[in-house]
Amino acid sequence: MLVLVVYDINTKFKHGEKRLLKIGQKCHSYGRRVQNSTYECIVDQSEYLKLKKAILDIIEMEVDSVRFYNLGKNYRTKIEVYGLDNGIDVDDNLIF
Amino acid sequence: MLVLVVYDINTKFKHGEKRLLKIGQKCHSYGRRVQNSTYECIVDQSEYLKLKKAILDIIEMEVDSVRFYNLGKNYRTKIEVYGLDNGIDVDDNLIF
Repeated sequence: MLVLVVYDINTKFKHGEKRLLKIGQKCHSYGRRVQNSTYECIVDQSEYLKLKKAILDIIEMEVDSVRFYNLGKNYRTKIEVYGLDNGIDVDDNLIF
Repeated sequence: MLVLVVYDINTKFKHGEKRLLKIGQKCHSYGRRVQNSTYECIVDQSEYLKLKKAILDIIEMEVDSVRFYNLGKNYRTKIEVYGLDNGIDVDDNLIF
């Protein structure tokens, strides 16, 4: 399934930049960035719980926010992209 | 239904800032901003087509990008929010 992760980290609060970096790295391990602080993550249910827990362990609840949008398994029919598609489709194998 | 609009406007390209402003205003008329360049829009099917057309008339296809994520009518079961929820719920009546 595809889960869109949208986060807003208060970088004025202590260690904000560090939290921002850590969350980006965590999301990147499951998907691709489509906008600043917005990732498309392809996960199964257990990976989703792991990703969510990892992110909630990073954010400061009083000053940051994170939103998870679950588009389910048939996500391709629910997404329309226009203009430049600068993301890498995670279903393709990534070559490092 | 709720449609998440995520756009990436190339402000280095001519009139980029103007496009950015116009799209934000257009999305704001249907919903609320949850992150830079990310809006939750509550629309019916005809409003969705109108919103999409208006946005596609604004962006420069070669340099900008916009993504529409359709979460359908039962969107509340598909969204999880943690931490600060700094958005205004569009279903509440907005007082100006």
